[in-house]
Amino acid sequence: MNSELRVGVVGAGAMGFDHVKRLTGTITGAHVSAVVEPDETRRNAALEHAPQAQGFASVEAALAAGVMDAALIATPGQFHEAGLLACLGEGLPILCEKPLTKDPASSWHVVEAEIAGGKKLIQVGFMRRFDREYEALRELIASERVGELLMIHAVHRNPSVPDSYDQHMLINDSVVHEFDVVPWLAGGSVTSVEVRHGRRNPNTPAHLREPILVLMELDNGVLVDVEMNVSVRFGYQVATEAVMADGIARIGQPSGMQIWQNATYSVGEHADFTTRFVEAYDREVQAWVDAAKQGTIAGPSAWDGYKVAVCCEAGVRALENPGRVAVELPPVPDFYA
Amino acid sequence: MNSELRVGVVGAGAMGFDHVKRLTGTITGAHVSAVVEPDETRRNAALEHAPQAQGFASVEAALAAGVMDAALIATPGQFHEAGLLACLGEGLPILCEKPLTKDPASSWHVVEAEIAGGKKLIQVGFMRRFDREYEALRELIASERVGELLMIHAVHRNPSVPDSYDQHMLINDSVVHEFDVVPWLAGGSVTSVEVRHGRRNPNTPAHLREPILVLMELDNGVLVDVEMNVSVRFGYQVATEAVMADGIARIGQPSGMQIWQNATYSVGEHADFTTRFVEAYDREVQAWVDAAKQGTIAGPSAWDGYKVAVCCEAGVRALENPGRVAVELPPVPDFYA
Amino acid sequence: MNSELRVGVVGAGAMGFDHVKRLTGTITGAHVSAVVEPDETRRNAALEHAPQAQGFASVEAALAAGVMDAALIATPGQFHEAGLLACLGEGLPILCEKPLTKDPASSWHVVEAEIAGGKKLIQVGFMRRFDREYEALRELIASERVGELLMIHAVHRNPSVPDSYDQHMLINDSVVHEFDVVPWLAGGSVTSVEVRHGRRNPNTPAHLREPILVLMELDNGVLVDVEMNVSVRFGYQVATEAVMADGIARIGQPSGMQIWQNATYSVGEHADFTTRFVEAYDREVQAWVDAAKQGTIAGPSAWDGYKVAVCCEAGVRALENPGRVAVELPPVPDFYA
Amino acid sequence: MNSELRVGVVGAGAMGFDHVKRLTGTITGAHVSAVVEPDETRRNAALEHAPQAQGFASVEAALAAGVMDAALIATPGQFHEAGLLACLGEGLPILCEKPLTKDPASSWHVVEAEIAGGKKLIQVGFMRRFDREYEALRELIASERVGELLMIHAVHRNPSVPDSYDQHMLINDSVVHEFDVVPWLAGGSVTSVEVRHGRRNPNTPAHLREPILVLMELDNGVLVDVEMNVSVRFGYQVATEAVMADGIARIGQPSGMQIWQNATYSVGEHADFTTRFVEAYDREVQAWVDAAKQGTIAGPSAWDGYKVAVCCEAGVRALENPGRVAVELPPVPDFYA
Repeated sequence: MNSELRVGVVGAGAMGFDHVKRLTGTITGAHVSAVVEPDETRRNAALEHAPQAQGFASVEAALAAGVMDAALIATPGQFHEAGLLACLGEGLPILCEKPLTKDPASSWHVVEAEIAGGKKLIQVGFMRRFDREYEALRELIASERVGELLMIHAVHRNPSVPDSYDQHMLINDSVVHEFDVVPWLAGGSVTSVEVRHGRRNPNTPAHLREPILVLMELDNGVLVDVEMNVSVRFGYQVATEAVMADGIARIGQPSGMQIWQNATYSVGEHADFTTRFVEAYDREVQAWVDAAKQGTIAGPSAWDGYKVAVCCEAGVRALENPGRVAVELPPVPDFYA
Repeated sequence: MNSELRVGVVGAGAMGFDHVKRLTGTITGAHVSAVVEPDETRRNAALEHAPQAQGFASVEAALAAGVMDAALIATPGQFHEAGLLACLGEGLPILCEKPLTKDPASSWHVVEAEIAGGKKLIQVGFMRRFDREYEALRELIASERVGELLMIHAVHRNPSVPDSYDQHMLINDSVVHEFDVVPWLAGGSVTSVEVRHGRRNPNTPAHLREPILVLMELDNGVLVDVEMNVSVRFGYQVATEAVMADGIARIGQPSGMQIWQNATYSVGEHADFTTRFVEAYDREVQAWVDAAKQGTIAGPSAWDGYKVAVCCEAGVRALENPGRVAVELPPVPDFYA
Repeated sequence: MNSELRVGVVGAGAMGFDHVKRLTGTITGAHVSAVVEPDETRRNAALEHAPQAQGFASVEAALAAGVMDAALIATPGQFHEAGLLACLGEGLPILCEKPLTKDPASSWHVVEAEIAGGKKLIQVGFMRRFDREYEALRELIASERVGELLMIHAVHRNPSVPDSYDQHMLINDSVVHEFDVVPWLAGGSVTSVEVRHGRRNPNTPAHLREPILVLMELDNGVLVDVEMNVSVRFGYQVATEAVMADGIARIGQPSGMQIWQNATYSVGEHADFTTRFVEAYDREVQAWVDAAKQGTIAGPSAWDGYKVAVCCEAGVRALENPGRVAVELPPVPDFYA
Repeated sequence: MNSELRVGVVGAGAMGFDHVKRLTGTITGAHVSAVVEPDETRRNAALEHAPQAQGFASVEAALAAGVMDAALIATPGQFHEAGLLACLGEGLPILCEKPLTKDPASSWHVVEAEIAGGKKLIQVGFMRRFDREYEALRELIASERVGELLMIHAVHRNPSVPDSYDQHMLINDSVVHEFDVVPWLAGGSVTSVEVRHGRRNPNTPAHLREPILVLMELDNGVLVDVEMNVSVRFGYQVATEAVMADGIARIGQPSGMQIWQNATYSVGEHADFTTRFVEAYDREVQAWVDAAKQGTIAGPSAWDGYKVAVCCEAGVRALENPGRVAVELPPVPDFYA
């Protein structure tokens, strides 16, 4: 397919709204062609960020209109099953926000429906797999450069949670990520789960009991503990420490992945400018494109370029002669002031 | 302008080629409509990454064809002036790779031409201004939260340079970035430049004399030193340390911006999940869009979703009961194996 | 007591030998007056580092000689009880290496004997309480500046263990430290212990099964997990992470205590030169004392002092004048060459 | 000499007072036998920390009394020459606080006097050479493991200075350390000095002009810059960055020595428990010795030892059985409460 993928976003709550903006402003090769949301206010808010999209109140209506090549499902979890089955029925590729569905029985139902259709169409939105540090840690573990994986310590710390967050969401909304990403990192499957309780945080809302420590065993013998902590206030932190036969690796720290091996603690530095400044180049060109469409610029001007040329000329003289070389600039033209 | 910006990329060497790929694969709201490059091999290589573009051997030919809304100039510096003047003549917005032109006289000429046209059309490619840490440091300095800026120590370390890199390029190709970004950070203008020499690096190519220490004075009294080092081998590092009246800030370290104040060294952590995982979400959706267009998926499958649902059910039981709860999964269906 | 404390060191294995050297070379106000060790080779090796000491084959003989004001017991744990009771009988102050004795019954016996004597004479060698970071963490927890303590994650990683290290020593020799220091940090008492197993480390000796994760509950609700890992090879690491209501603190990292609070990660810097260089001053004066007793010096000479005086004179001129000031030194006199 | 070195401390200002306490409380093999200080109040204050010392108003009186084996000179710098010559005359080993004397002529005079005596007796108090990180950096540079040394960047930052600190002291009291330690690190001799000025710090006292940047050239081609900053308020920092042919090393950071090489940033971890806890052992034994002399203990009691024995017994059962093992303790005896 050379043309752009026409994506219908199903559900325009916080998560769906965010995906609409992402598809419009960041993702290349696709655009939002439909916003499916029964609530009119939310639907219209999302449509403001989707200039090529139509609004629909139901998935069925959107499918009937034939404007979608693919669907991104971001409704609350209890509605996923219906949306998934409808889209599977049309053979559409689907990105479904986690969880797949609300329980194992309905998830199994979806799995059966996908198998019946004969084609893998569903991708589930466990986005940690796309985090560069998780990728690097998985690669490190698989390589066994630091030896076999033995244990994993994970922490998931939220500053606070909304009132709607209930006790089961500690598992279904938060630890759920670890249930996906830990086996993916560790190359095994979960065989048991246990929950232990820490001292109650005085910041914890009355209807919750946390922090908790979740212990998971994998079929390859790896033991996993997860601190799940939703009222710790200090910030948002999702971090993982992998204990391997010959050392330790940590991700989710401000410094990037840390490796502890051979009595040394090390962190990667850039090897060349392409990684160091790739994001700056991307942002520079995007800012320029956006400004050019408005008839303006969004960065250093020709006057800035001229000033630098004068400095360089002085710099080259200084390179070849001892002492200070004066830099003399004319006054700034009004045009650039 | 609602439709996409049609960008002509002028020059398809390493930098131009990279910008073609960026405009096609990363930047939204624009596409490459023309590749201008006299060398046919290079031109065709770039065109492979620009499905909507035509090739031209000269700027004049491309302008005559009327296919460009804007130009990105990435030719060698000595050809910038001609390209800039041609595009200015047509009133096109221009992103011009650094330097603006090869010397102050030609830069002044460009400035005059732009002023004569009555509209700011030129943005110069000093991309450091778009690096998030430089932005944060500039904001910190301007805020005076750590007091007035007094000195800047900068380092620019390359692992090595190509044979074509000559002595003047220490200034014109490398320190040139500091001539732009330091005044932008410090809110002043350069008044003098001096160059001092360190001990010669045995890794330095025979035709170069480096490392050097460049001293710059600004009109607001700030003193700047820049270590310019192109054979240091350890990696690529561009880092800046701002000495302020009440503390120090550093950027360009693996940990992100460090602030030293009140007998404490601190680094920011994430405050919520939007900053922690924004890039993972972007990469997830882009990978899914790319895969969907090929009829595949590129992430967790429905089977992964089902397995997590089983773990969550066990996890909720563990939340409510002491001891281990077994997780029992059916065999993987062949469909997902 | 103004005169020096006469210490009898009981046991001259690795630990006792080390304490003999420490008492002789580092500790002020005391000296080793007796080395008690039945093995003659070991006893003589220790006596070489204890110029004021006599050797004895038994505690009883040493006590009878009346040369000890105090005893440092460093025999294997199964002999502690007998040594403790003998020294308690003489009313001597005792520093007893951990553990107090080999099991609860014998420890209770010692406690009863001490109570019967009416005076606290025994200090047990849990040296972590004297580590500056443990002290700082305890103070931080007690202060509740980061809120109430909720959980503790600890790791104890050894590169390897000797053949004599058996499975029970995972608890009795290693986790034993946590049994002392965690309640001391957390202000509570241990109410339960559980052990979980990680995947077996291929580096683990055949007769051991580790790493393990030890879970401890305290009577104030704090949950503690301890990774105990004796074959991890990467180095020696004993680290503790305290999860508090409003943030996190970590000790045992190369950077010193880290505090994560208010979306910031911070580490202390020195506030003045006394902490920065206190150890350098101590080492300088000790090196000078040791050298002076040998009729030599062990640091910068008068010639070094002269050279610096010349540099300072040039530096003051440079402070008052622009440009480089030459530093001219006469040739080094043969006397200092 | 087997007996203790009898040290006369000459000058009992802040520095001398500190050395008296150090010699009495920290240094082994020596004691303060004389305090020489004309000011009676200061002299008596120092004598309180020197139980074996006599007080004198002049060096001559102290020398005449024959109570000194060695002298530690800590008077103000302008009085060093007289004290040095007097002590040299008696053939005493001398530790002389920096600077050697107030200017090159008087330093030369001292050098001549020492040479005439035929024996190196003077050690100058440049204590940075005894800082473990400076030692490690010097060793690293000499080894050329990261290649030849090319440049040094140093910073010396004070939070503030007393009113008595004048402009020349920037050089004579502060940069003076770099004049000693940089050639010692770099294996060269200073050939020129230049001073450049940063923007004036609003915190700087009216009679000073700083911060300054001091540029030093060494005879081996190494270029050195020193930021000297005495009003930066954030804390006390003395740090050095060595630029070598293949990488970078930094000392004076909270993390200990950092090495940047092969696109990696690394910091040492402990290899075994001896370095990790050596200071804790020293402090433990010293605290116990001090307490034993007072008839008390200063650490974990026998009761603490008993509690740990109970935990260990439970821990060993937990090691061999699944699930939680309760830890049951009797009430704390009043004796230990």
